Parts: sequence; structure tokens; C-alpha cells
Amino acid sequence: MRIVVLTGGIGGARFLLGVRAHARDIGADVTAIVNVGDDVRMHGLQICPDLDSVMYTLGGAADPERGWGRVGESWVVKEELAKYGVEPSWFGLGDKDTATHLVRTTMLNAGYPLSAVTAALCERWQPGIEMIPASDDRLETHVVVDVDGERKAIHFQEWWVRHRGEVPTHRFVFRGAESAKPAAGVLEAIAGADVVLVAPSNPVVSIAPILAVPALKDAVSNGPAPVVGISPIIGGAPVRGMADKCLATLDVEVSAAGVGRMYGPRAEGGLLDGWLVDTSDAAAQVPGVRTRAVPLWMKDETLTARMVADALELAR
Amino acid sequence: MRIVVLTGGIGGARFLLGVRAHARDIGADVTAIVNVGDDVRMHGLQICPDLDSVMYTLGGAADPERGWGRVGESWVVKEELAKYGVEPSWFGLGDKDTATHLVRTTMLNAGYPLSAVTAALCERWQPGIEMIPASDDRLETHVVVDVDGERKAIHFQEWWVRHRGEVPTHRFVFRGAESAKPAAGVLEAIAGADVVLVAPSNPVVSIAPILAVPALKDAVSNGPAPVVGISPIIGGAPVRGMADKCLATLDVEVSAAGVGRMYGPRAEGGLLDGWLVDTSDAAAQVPGVRTRAVPLWMKDETLTARMVADALELAR
Repeated sequence: MRIVVLTGGIGGARFLLGVRAHARDIGADVTAIVNVGDDVRMHGLQICPDLDSVMYTLGGAADPERGWGRVGESWVVKEELAKYGVEPSWFGLGDKDTATHLVRTTMLNAGYPLSAVTAALCERWQPGIEMIPASDDRLETHVVVDVDGERKAIHFQEWWVRHRGEVPTHRFVFRGAESAKPAAGVLEAIAGADVVLVAPSNPVVSIAPILAVPALKDAVSNGPAPVVGISPIIGGAPVRGMADKCLATLDVEVSAAGVGRMYGPRAEGGLLDGWLVDTSDAAAQVPGVRTRAVPLWMKDETLTARMVADALELAR
Repeated sequence: MRIVVLTGGIGGARFLLGVRAHARDIGADVTAIVNVGDDVRMHGLQICPDLDSVMYTLGGAADPERGWGRVGESWVVKEELAKYGVEPSWFGLGDKDTATHLVRTTMLNAGYPLSAVTAALCERWQPGIEMIPASDDRLETHVVVDVDGERKAIHFQEWWVRHRGEVPTHRFVFRGAESAKPAAGVLEAIAGADVVLVAPSNPVVSIAPILAVPALKDAVSNGPAPVVGISPIIGGAPVRGMADKCLATLDVEVSAAGVGRMYGPRAEGGLLDGWLVDTSDAAAQVPGVRTRAVPLWMKDETLTARMVADALELAR
């Protein structure tokens, strides 16, 4: 059995722990197609927050309390950069992380595509699944906001980390998406999948940038595998992160039903065949999509694996 | 009064502490023209060991025991790079240093010349003198050696740090020197100097690469200012570093007289008008060059400043 997961960073990484656990039980292969819209170049370093969150989490090296970055991280490089007065100073650039970015940037500058770089980094981390960036092309999520009385587009990281989403926000733009091609291996993985799972990641800034790659969206929408999503909203609030702020910008109701309807039924050009919601959202209705309510809190790997088993069952 | 100093890294940096102290006493301006032959790009970072040694030492941030790099340095980035298995792993890349290299590399990649980058970094360190790289062009010292039965040219850093100079060594090559131009400000400083001092740095791999820039050598040799060198050899041994190994490669006697004769008298196309040797080398003869013996051990800033005063006196 071959499972493909469309995923973002932290929440998606925790979901993937459950996917990997369940896949080991049933002897399945897993390929994660990871959002690259968060990627950013800072201080000359190419930083891929979602790829790193997945890699570190599955490699057992993520910081469980902070949620992002490496356990036992230190911040000397960041403090020194601030002492030089160079911007941006608001980004959490850890020392261990810096080494990852140096290896990645050196390989990218030498001409390797991001997918090959990711595979090389994973030789160290042994995530136990295949990890592929959605695209090897440059694709960045920018956010149209009002700052200091001026309307402008800022990088997603600036919106998320610097402003914590607390600026008047008009829309999200996936720069480069229209001309971006799926990374090497992405279309093959989708074509060969028995099921495509949509992780309970932020639908607006983690999943949407993946689907903004035209050939990738087309492969999922018109592919042979059923597509089952897991709601990132439980009881009207995001499990973590700022999905509520993102959904509000799009005038989408912050509910399991709202996100399910935004994704829409695959039969009508949308994304989903099935939609897994939490038991507290059992009344959620998504026309054209089979909906099922099960416990969605990813409290530990066993519970998450159970949720994955439920998603696979819904796909049948 | 305007003093120009040709200098390398660690020994040169300590010498400059004395130059700065004496210059403050007599109200003189100091410009250091710093070797760039040690410069190397590693892990995508442009590293300038001699510029950094001078900058950190004069900025009060150098590690006094290790001799190079920053006091209170940590090594997380280096350890992490080693865990990724990327080479080179033998170079001492500190975390604080990494921030310096990131700022420098980002500015260089944005198109700023090294001299402008150095000036920008010095805004933080306030060295109290002007620091200019010998050239803004790429100029690297390579070393022709026999390694594993094969004759090849390796970067100076590989020879120095990785092999500690302990491989059969045939010659030093200053790649890029013939076409390198003096950095912005270098010719003006030499033309306006009242005296040019040659720091007691390694003559083969610190001073020679500076003078390998044709227009720079010409400006010093044919300039208006007297040139006084300070011997890096005391009693037949280098004060620090591996000048003995470097001189042996060139079949130059490891003595104050040997180095003085290698530099040669300015009147005959060489470098020197005056040559300061240690009292223990009072018998040293350098035909065509005024030689004077004074205490040359740079035990503290006061003694070093005294040595600088002696050099200036010899220049008169």
C-alpha cells in the first residue's frame, strides 16, 4: 500500500508520526509532499521551515516544547547577527538550524534541486518516509497587509513570526506558483498512490500553496487515489497555529465544516472524497464529501495512528 | 603623521595593538593593509582569517589563549556540519565567527567589494585604525604539496590547519595575484604615508601575498615613504606560527638576517629601507638596509608600542 500525504510543518509533522507508525503496522510506504511556501532566504541562507519541521520531528530531533526547530538549540549566530545590526532580527535562527541551512544553501548554489538536497539531508535524519518538497521551483507565500498605513506584500514569515498575524490582512499570494512544476518524484508518487491524505495542517498557508502548483493540483484532483482530509479545526478553533486568522481573511467559517467546504468535493473540481472531523464536530456537513467523526486530538503517536487508520478506512 | 602597516593575521594584529597605542600618543593615523591570501570559501561562507584576526584583536574580542577567533566562542555549527558529513570538517568555524561570515558573504553576494564589507563590519568593532584588504579581487594562497603520493595544489588553509604544514611542500602560489588590483583606498594610503611598516608577520604567506599585487608592490617600492620592517624571526625561530616551515620551502635561512635579505633593500628593487631585529640578533647583516637591534618580544602593548617607536625612529 502506498500513502501520499500533503502536509505543512509542525501539525503535519506530528500527523506524519502517526502515519509512519500505522504504515509500519500495515507494511505501507509513505511519501510526504511538503509545503515550500514558507521558504525564505535570510542572511544568505535558504530556510525551509516546513521541510525542517517534518525532518526534525520524524528524525527525533525536534524541540517538543517550542514546537519548531531543534531540541537543545542555541542562539549564538542569531545574537551575533543582531549585534551587527543586520535585519531581519525577528527570525528564530538557531545554531543547529544554521548548519542545516548552510548545507542546503551550498547544495542549492551548486545547482542541486531542493528535492535532491532534501534527500541528502534526510540521509542523516532517516525519517522513515520519503519527503519531497511540493516544488523545486521558487514558490513563496506573500501576504498583502496594511503596515504603517501602507498596503504592501510581505513574506509569510514576516507576517507570521514578526507580526504574529496581527496586522490588517487582505490576502495570501503564492508567488511563483503558476509557473512552478511539481518537484521530481511528486507526480509519480501521486499517480502510484492508493490513498492521498491531506494532513490537518493550516489549509490556507500550508495546504493551499501545495495545491497552487497547477500540475500537482491536477494530479491529485484527477488521479486514481481517493483523497481524505483531516480537519485542522476542532470545535471551531485551530488545533494549533493561526488557521483562524488565515481563514477569516478568506471569509471562510472557522469550523470543520467550513474548511471541508472550502476544500470541496473532488467530484466537483475540489479536493476531497472523504473528510475526517472530530467527534465534537459530528454534525458537520460537507455536501458531496463523505464525512466521518472520530477523535482527532493528536495527543500521542498511538492516538494519531488510530486516526490515520480511520482516514484509510474512510478512503475505502 | 600617517602610518601604513602591511600585515597578516595574529602576529600582525598584536603588532597593530602597539601601533595603535603609539599612534594615539603621537596623534598619528594608522592604515593597515591586510593580507587576503588566507581567505577561503567554505560551506558557502567567505572567510577572511587575517582581516578577522585584526578586527577582533583591535575590537577587544579576540581569544587571547587560542590566538585566533573570538573569545567565548562556541562550536555548534561546526559540530552539526560534521554530523551531516560535509567537508571540510577540519576548519575551526565558530558560531560567533559564522555570524561574521554570514554578514560578509551576504554583502559580497549583493555586490559590495570586500573593502566596503570590511568597513561595514568595523562599524561594530571600532578598531581605531583604518583596515583595508590588500585587494578586493580574489587572491588565494595555494600550496604545491605531495599528498598520498600525488603532487597537487591545495588551499593554504588546508595546508596550515589540516596538515599543520607537515607534508612535503614545494612552493606557494598566489592565485589571482597578477591580475589583482589594490583594494579601494590602498594606493591612496601608501601615497599619503609618512612611513610604511612591515609587521612581524609570516613573510612567505602573510606579507608576500600582499606584495604579489603588482600595483601595490610598485606603490610601496617606488613610493615617497620609507619602509621599515620588523623581523618575525628572533634567535633563529619564528615568534609564533610556522614561518620556519615556509622559509625552508623557499630555501631562505630562518634568521632575522635571512628574512631581511629576502625582503631586500628598496634601493635595489626590494622592500626595505630599515630592518628592526631583536637585540639577540644584533649581529644580523642585511646589505643595503639600515638595521637596528631592539627588544622585539611583544609581551604587552607598552613594549610593542616601544618597538613601534623604535621603528619610526629608524625610518627617519
